[in-house]
Amino acid sequence: MSDNKVLIFDTTLRDGEQSPGATMTHDEKLEIASMLDDMGVDIIEAGFPIASEGDFAAVSEIAKNSVNSRICGLARANFADIDRCWEAVKHAKQNRIHTFIGTSPLHRAIPNLTQDEMADKIHQTVTHARNLCDNVQWSPMDATRTEWDYLCRVIEIAIKAGATTINIPDTVGYTAPAESADLIKRLIETVPGADEVTFATHCHNDLGMATANSLAAVAGGARQIECTINGLGERAGNTALEEVVMALKTRHDIMPWTTGIDTTKIMAISRRVSTVSGFLVQPNKAIVGKNAFAHESGIHQDGMLKNRENFEIMRPEDVGLSGTSLPLGKHSGRAALRDKLEQLGFEVGDNQLKDIFVRFKELADRKKEVFDDDVVALVRADSGEDEDDRLQLVSMKVVCGTGGPAESTIEMEVDGKDMSATAEGDGPVDATFKAIRQIHPNTARLQLYQVSAVTEGTDAQATVSVRLEEDGVIATGQSANTDTVVASAKAYIHALNRLLVRRDKVGEGADAKEVSYKDLA
Amino acid sequence: MSDNKVLIFDTTLRDGEQSPGATMTHDEKLEIASMLDDMGVDIIEAGFPIASEGDFAAVSEIAKNSVNSRICGLARANFADIDRCWEAVKHAKQNRIHTFIGTSPLHRAIPNLTQDEMADKIHQTVTHARNLCDNVQWSPMDATRTEWDYLCRVIEIAIKAGATTINIPDTVGYTAPAESADLIKRLIETVPGADEVTFATHCHNDLGMATANSLAAVAGGARQIECTINGLGERAGNTALEEVVMALKTRHDIMPWTTGIDTTKIMAISRRVSTVSGFLVQPNKAIVGKNAFAHESGIHQDGMLKNRENFEIMRPEDVGLSGTSLPLGKHSGRAALRDKLEQLGFEVGDNQLKDIFVRFKELADRKKEVFDDDVVALVRADSGEDEDDRLQLVSMKVVCGTGGPAESTIEMEVDGKDMSATAEGDGPVDATFKAIRQIHPNTARLQLYQVSAVTEGTDAQATVSVRLEEDGVIATGQSANTDTVVASAKAYIHALNRLLVRRDKVGEGADAKEVSYKDLA
Repeated sequence: MSDNKVLIFDTTLRDGEQSPGATMTHDEKLEIASMLDDMGVDIIEAGFPIASEGDFAAVSEIAKNSVNSRICGLARANFADIDRCWEAVKHAKQNRIHTFIGTSPLHRAIPNLTQDEMADKIHQTVTHARNLCDNVQWSPMDATRTEWDYLCRVIEIAIKAGATTINIPDTVGYTAPAESADLIKRLIETVPGADEVTFATHCHNDLGMATANSLAAVAGGARQIECTINGLGERAGNTALEEVVMALKTRHDIMPWTTGIDTTKIMAISRRVSTVSGFLVQPNKAIVGKNAFAHESGIHQDGMLKNRENFEIMRPEDVGLSGTSLPLGKHSGRAALRDKLEQLGFEVGDNQLKDIFVRFKELADRKKEVFDDDVVALVRADSGEDEDDRLQLVSMKVVCGTGGPAESTIEMEVDGKDMSATAEGDGPVDATFKAIRQIHPNTARLQLYQVSAVTEGTDAQATVSVRLEEDGVIATGQSANTDTVVASAKAYIHALNRLLVRRDKVGEGADAKEVSYKDLA
Repeated sequence: MSDNKVLIFDTTLRDGEQSPGATMTHDEKLEIASMLDDMGVDIIEAGFPIASEGDFAAVSEIAKNSVNSRICGLARANFADIDRCWEAVKHAKQNRIHTFIGTSPLHRAIPNLTQDEMADKIHQTVTHARNLCDNVQWSPMDATRTEWDYLCRVIEIAIKAGATTINIPDTVGYTAPAESADLIKRLIETVPGADEVTFATHCHNDLGMATANSLAAVAGGARQIECTINGLGERAGNTALEEVVMALKTRHDIMPWTTGIDTTKIMAISRRVSTVSGFLVQPNKAIVGKNAFAHESGIHQDGMLKNRENFEIMRPEDVGLSGTSLPLGKHSGRAALRDKLEQLGFEVGDNQLKDIFVRFKELADRKKEVFDDDVVALVRADSGEDEDDRLQLVSMKVVCGTGGPAESTIEMEVDGKDMSATAEGDGPVDATFKAIRQIHPNTARLQLYQVSAVTEGTDAQATVSVRLEEDGVIATGQSANTDTVVASAKAYIHALNRLLVRRDKVGEGADAKEVSYKDLA
C-alpha cells in the first residue's frame, strides 16, 4: 500500500444497521454490499456473525459474493465470537476478523476486570483470531477515554499478538480534530511496532465533527477511515463516507491522500441506503442532500452563477448526479429502461426488469415524463413486494374527507386465502391500517410513518415508509404509488410481512438478537 | 466583553432564509427572531433590507421588538444599500450594519474593479456605514480564495474606516479546520488594528466541516460565530448553531470559551424553524435529530446503558428534551395546555390559545394521549390558517383505492363566495389538488410534497408540507390533521394563499426580489 492511500472501511451494514429502525433484510444487505464492493470500498464490515443466524448468513453470503473488497466481521473478545466470525468471513477471497473490547475505566468496570486481566484477555483473543485469519483488526472501544499508558500498553499487546490494523474508536463522538490528530500521532510515535500496522479512525458525529475528526486522524497518521453511507448510525451517526471521500478529493492540495472510491457511484448508493434503512437524508446534507449542489436546488441562474466556479467546489457529475439526464416517456422501450437503470446504479435480472417494465408502462401512461427519481421509486416498489409474502393486498377502496370518519375496505390474500374487512378510522390511513389489522390481527406499534413525493408535480409517485415494532423486533416497509393511500397500505403490509419472517425466525430461536448490539463500539 | 466569550451571530433569517424554498412569511420571521432573542443570541441578522419591501418591513419590525439581541441588516458595498439597511435597523436598541464585497479575483472580475478601485470603494462604504451606526461589520466575501496581501490590505482599510467586526466568510465551504484557525490567527497577527476589532467566522458545510471550521477559527482568535438553526442555508447549509454551542459547552475542557445561549431552548426553535422552512431534520442529525440522544431512539435499555455516561456525552435536558414529559388527555384543561405550550417554547395570546384549545379537545376526543409533538402540531396547524385568507376549505370528500382513478369533491370559499368542484386524479392527493385548481385556477408547480406522522400510532396526526413555485415566487404551506388527505388539501390551500399574498405584492412592485440574493456570502 502506498503511503498516501487511505483505506475506506465501510460499516453501513454493521454499525449503520444497528441504529434503531435501520434493520435491513438479507437481500438488502447483499445488494448494499455489492454496491459497496463495486464502488471501490476497501473493507466492508458486513455484520456481527454471532449476533444471530441472520447476521451469520448475511456475512457468509456477502463473503462468498465479494469481488474486490475485503470482508470483515465483528467479534467480541472471546473465542466463540471469533470462531463464529471466521466461519462467516472465511468464504471471502480477502477476509478480516475485527475484535474489540472496551478499555476505558467505565468499560473495564462492567466485566469487572483489572488492567492485567484485561491485557491478558486481549493477548489471548487477538492471538486466537490471528491463528485463524492473517488479517486481524483490533479496537480498544472508548479509546479516547482510556488512560494513556494503559492504551499504549494494550495496543502493543494486540500488535505483538498479531493484529494488522489498530482501530481507535471515538465511541461517544466526544473528540475534536486537534485531539484526534494528536492521539493517532502520539500512539504511532510511542507504541513499539506501531509502524508495522495500519491505524484506523472510527468517529461518531454527536458534536457534528466526525468528518473533520476522521481527516485529522489521517493527518496524524491513520490510513483507514471507518464510515457509513449517509452517516447512518446510532444517535447522530457515524462519519459519512461521501463527506470524507469528497473532502479528500476536493482538497487534495492540502490533504495529499487518495482513496480507491469511484465517487460517481455515491448518489446511487446514498439513495438506496436511504430507502432500505428508512432514514431520510435532509436537503441540506453535505454531498448527498437534495440541495447540496447549487444547480440541483431549482434557483434561478443569474449572472453570478454563470461562472459556476464562484459557488461550486465540486461538480455534480463527480458524485453521479447527471444534470442533463433525459426523462423517459411512454414510448421508451425495455432497452432504454435497462440503460437508465444501469446509469442509476441498479443491476437487475431479466425477470426483475420484466416486472419493473410493466410498472414503468403503467406509470408512463399516467405521467408524461418519467424522471430518474421515478425510476428509482419503481425499483424500490418492486423490491418491496414478493410473491412469497404471506400477506398480499388484492384491492382496496377508501372514502374520506371532512364529513366524518374515513372508511376503508380492504381485500387481501393471507396464506393464499381471500379475506376482506371494512373499518372506520381517523383519516384514510388509520382506517386502512385498522382494516388490515382486522384481517391480520397484530400488536405491532407504528414507530414511523413518512411520505415523500418522488418527483415534482401533483401526479408524482409518493414513497411511503412504515416502521413497525413488535416485541422488540423492528421492520420497515416501503412502497411507491401515485396513490398515497394505496402506497401506505402496501408499505404497512410489506412491514408486516417482514415482521412475520422475523417472528418465525425468533420462534425457531434463530434471530433472537440474543447478543445485544449495545455491546458494540 | 471577556476574552473567553464567543458571540453567537444567527443568520437563519438572512442566509438561511435565502435557501431555495425556505422563504418565510413576515409573521414567521418575527416569531423566529423573538425566539432567537429569548434564547440569548447576541446578534440577529434579520434580513437584507434593500432586497424587497418585505425584507425591509421584517428587519424594521424585528428591530423594534428586539429585547436583548443586537439587530443586524445586510448591505452591499454601496450607499443606497447601507442607507436602506440603517433605516431598518435604527429602531433597535442595539443595531449593526453588515456590509460586504467579494474580494477574490473571481469576484473582483464581475464589477471589473482593480485592486485599488475596490480598496477605495471599501473605504468609502465602510466610512459611510460608520457615520450612520457605531457598530459596523464588514465581510470580504470569498476571503479564503482572496490573495493574502490584498486580504490584509482591505481588512486594514475597513478597520481604519470604522468597522468594529471583521467577518471572514468561507463562502463555498472549501476550508479545512487547520486552515480556518491559521487564517484568523495570521490575520490578527498581521493586520494593523486587528486587536481592536472582533473577528468573526462564517462557514458553509459543503464538505461537512462547518462546525469544526468555526471552532477552529475561535481557537485562532475569532470571537463571533455566524450560524443558523438546523444548519439551514443554501446547498449543504451554514454552520449549525446547535452544534457549535453544544460542542463549546460539552468540551469546555479543551475549548475554554462560553456563549450566552440558553441551550434548553434549542429543541423548540429547531422544530419551529424546520416547520416554517419546510426543511426536515434527518434523524441522525447531530444534537437536534430524532435519534441524536440514545434514550430518544426507542432502543432497549440493556445493562450497558444503565450507566448512561457510557454512551451519552450530553443530557437530553440540556437541549430542552424532556424525557419525563407527561402527555395531556381529554380531561386536561386550558391551563394545562397553556403550561405545556410554554414548556414547548410557544407564547400564545388568549385568542390563539382559544383556537388551539378547541382543536386540542377535538384531538383528545379521538386520541387517548396527546403527546408534546401533537401539541406542537396543533400550534403549527393553527398558524397555518387565517380568517383573512382568500381561499378557505369548507368541506371535502374523497374516494380512492385500487379500482380506478381517485375522485375528490371539494367545497371552498373564494373571497367569501362558495364554490365546489369534483375531479379525478392519480390518487387522492392528485384528485384533490386538481379539484382545488378547478375552483382556483393557477399555474403553480408543486416542488415538494412531504408527510410525516407527528407521534407514534396509526391515529397520529400527520403534518403535510407543500411547496409551490409560480413565476419564481416560492411559498410553503403546512397543515396537521389525523386525515392526511384533508391535511394535504389544507397545506395546498395554505401555500396558495401565501402565493396570492406574494403575487399581490409583486404586482405592486413591492416584493419582486429585484436584488438577487445570489450576490451574497
